[in-house]
Amino acid sequence: MVAIEVAELSSNGLSKVAEQFASVGLSKVAVSDSHAENSRYFGGWKAYDENPYDELTNPNGVIQMGLAENQVSFDLLEDYLVKHSDSPATAPKNGISKFRENAFFQDYHGLLTFRKAMASFMESIREGRVKFDPERVVLTAGATAANELITFVLADPGDALLIPTPYYPGFDRDLRWRTGVEIVPVHCDSSNDFQVTPNALEEAFNKATSMNIKVRGLLLTNPSNPLGTSMQRSVLEQILNFAAQKNIHLVVDEIYSGTVFSSSEFISISEVLEARNYKDAERVHIVYSLSKDLGLPGFRIGTIYSYNDHVVTTARRMSSFSLISSHTQHLFASMLLDTEFTKIYIQTNRERLRKRYEMITQGLKKARIDCLKGNAGLFVWMNLSPFLGDNPTIEGEIELWESFVHEVKLNISPGSSCHCSEPGWFRGCFANMSEKTLDVALNRIYAFMEERGKLE
Amino acid sequence: MVAIEVAELSSNGLSKVAEQFASVGLSKVAVSDSHAENSRYFGGWKAYDENPYDELTNPNGVIQMGLAENQVSFDLLEDYLVKHSDSPATAPKNGISKFRENAFFQDYHGLLTFRKAMASFMESIREGRVKFDPERVVLTAGATAANELITFVLADPGDALLIPTPYYPGFDRDLRWRTGVEIVPVHCDSSNDFQVTPNALEEAFNKATSMNIKVRGLLLTNPSNPLGTSMQRSVLEQILNFAAQKNIHLVVDEIYSGTVFSSSEFISISEVLEARNYKDAERVHIVYSLSKDLGLPGFRIGTIYSYNDHVVTTARRMSSFSLISSHTQHLFASMLLDTEFTKIYIQTNRERLRKRYEMITQGLKKARIDCLKGNAGLFVWMNLSPFLGDNPTIEGEIELWESFVHEVKLNISPGSSCHCSEPGWFRGCFANMSEKTLDVALNRIYAFMEERGKLE
Repeated sequence: MVAIEVAELSSNGLSKVAEQFASVGLSKVAVSDSHAENSRYFGGWKAYDENPYDELTNPNGVIQMGLAENQVSFDLLEDYLVKHSDSPATAPKNGISKFRENAFFQDYHGLLTFRKAMASFMESIREGRVKFDPERVVLTAGATAANELITFVLADPGDALLIPTPYYPGFDRDLRWRTGVEIVPVHCDSSNDFQVTPNALEEAFNKATSMNIKVRGLLLTNPSNPLGTSMQRSVLEQILNFAAQKNIHLVVDEIYSGTVFSSSEFISISEVLEARNYKDAERVHIVYSLSKDLGLPGFRIGTIYSYNDHVVTTARRMSSFSLISSHTQHLFASMLLDTEFTKIYIQTNRERLRKRYEMITQGLKKARIDCLKGNAGLFVWMNLSPFLGDNPTIEGEIELWESFVHEVKLNISPGSSCHCSEPGWFRGCFANMSEKTLDVALNRIYAFMEERGKLE
Repeated sequence: MVAIEVAELSSNGLSKVAEQFASVGLSKVAVSDSHAENSRYFGGWKAYDENPYDELTNPNGVIQMGLAENQVSFDLLEDYLVKHSDSPATAPKNGISKFRENAFFQDYHGLLTFRKAMASFMESIREGRVKFDPERVVLTAGATAANELITFVLADPGDALLIPTPYYPGFDRDLRWRTGVEIVPVHCDSSNDFQVTPNALEEAFNKATSMNIKVRGLLLTNPSNPLGTSMQRSVLEQILNFAAQKNIHLVVDEIYSGTVFSSSEFISISEVLEARNYKDAERVHIVYSLSKDLGLPGFRIGTIYSYNDHVVTTARRMSSFSLISSHTQHLFASMLLDTEFTKIYIQTNRERLRKRYEMITQGLKKARIDCLKGNAGLFVWMNLSPFLGDNPTIEGEIELWESFVHEVKLNISPGSSCHCSEPGWFRGCFANMSEKTLDVALNRIYAFMEERGKLE
């Protein structure tokens, strides 16, 4: 996820000069709208960027509740790194300094110690219930790159991936833009708390087939963004069976795995595979990153963990286009290998997120807003459909969203930007701000509902 | 450039299990050979990886002369960073620590201060003869990513870029693999020291047209890898005129701009544009990185500098797939902005590279090997065609190359891997080793030539 392009190019005279001449064309990809930045999801960010809330300097500004960022446990990381830091250019040790090692290291396998560290951290999050092989860890500059890369590996232009709705709006860009691959939505709704059903899968698959589109895989986000829920084991099993039956791939984006409030409530697809002795493993690929669980998006650390040898080899070759700075790999390797630290971090982070979740859901309840019962993530999935009035449509949802952004001055994300087929659902993030700011946001919502006479 | 895939996946039982089941297919891109790792260029790396030379522990091992890496001025960087380093997690300053800033910063524009630093460094290399606008600096994780990215922006699958030969073997992967774009070679030869001529350009363009391939651009590497020469102003002007006449783009990869032994001998395409008041600027895009001039490939710092507003906007959006760690941006920003330091670095680096160049060309001369007269780069372009004997063909070149790799134990790169159309030319790198190792390499070559009776 990245900020939108708000700044115009500086007028240094060059563009004016250039405009006098016949235009030279760009590629179809370059001129297409698949970058998806014109969506409302990014539109809300713009409103925030133009008038950002600050407790002291801009108390009436827009509060950013559209950013799934985790700041609640950052102090733990800072403490650790202050205690264990060393200079980027330490004096030579055995004739070769760490800085020198970093500078020259360009092997696309990544540092072995860092791959071990990633595998170890992924095991810690699953409390050791499964093992990960560092040789299967393919490093990428963030999950954005990982998701695009795995799409390049699995599907040809014009082919499709199935994705249950609602889903992360960035997928419209990440999976489609440069790959030419299509997304076919698997429609889920509130009747069963947005769970994926065999019927919905079958329907989406058949729809693609009837349109002559070849389905190459299914992509899940577990725990779900935007739902804030983890998937049940039985549902994961059904989905894996479906993938095997259709002979397609299953990509599971588990970047929120460390945000599940209670460890036992998260079932990784790796555990499902383990339980069936790795039957069907060759079609399963996990995407992970440190951006959400550790709150480190700026460091661009992502990974693809594939059980398919050919995918590992190919993805690693492709990772040349998206390598992680060796400097950054080095910085985090020892921290992630320190299981004493990661255990405390993971536990504390879970508890703090649960506390935030309870704070926001209780505040919303006072304002008569119900949320889907969540157990994970950095956001709540709010049901504002009762407040759409006489316009229970996507248009009504957008109207309400405009009020939220411009009157209440909260940037929440409308469900339609996540391809939710039921109008009136919204995602609100709660971990990218202080409790104090969250309190301001909740008070604004309460006042808005009161003013609209919704609390009587 | 990255090391080849040599290690096999560890046998953890998973693959064996997976093999029992029907195979699930991958994309055409995944199963294609366009990753080009089976080329001899990478083959030589494998020989090195399996038996690397070490003065003390493996004095009969293979010396790596196939890696265009710059280690000659690394001490200057180390000294600077030791003196100016701070901890990655410094204590809060104004309530927000640098580490925290780094962690959350995920704007695809990159840190403004780092973009300014890149622009400033590029100006220093050109001794202030041109200015660069930080708003036009698009950051990417290395030049590998930059070259692929600009190809995605400029050309559709099936379209072509013209590239003068000989060229960097990695382009076969970087520009073609995931983009589906073709490379049409512009054949250059020793009759005019491999300079690009209007005739050769016209011929390549017509060849593409006759094959019904749309040419979207021309990509130059200036200074050239593998030639080790910079292009003359008049040639650059001809090429830009050609691009304008055909209404195509001109991408100039200037990643070796800081390696020109004498600053005045490097003419950037930016200077040519400046001189014509930015006429035709909208079709010009410069690729740059810190991997060669500063010798920092491990940090993955690349950039596209485009004079075309639409390209800047689109490339920046695409850079989401290939962002530079904010941590790494932060580390180098102040160093690159310290023009007092960069001036000394650039000058010292040029002098040291010239010294290396003289050392290797004189050593080769003793062994009766002539080189193209170079003035830049981290390599020499050796003419071994007189030693192909009764087989003056590409096959003969490969035979000689096999002797070099397996008998002389030097990994040099055969010209054919760079698509050179004349057999017998080889690239030998000289800046990725100590003078002592270079001396060992030169002695081996001398002994080989003596043994073959070539010195009589």
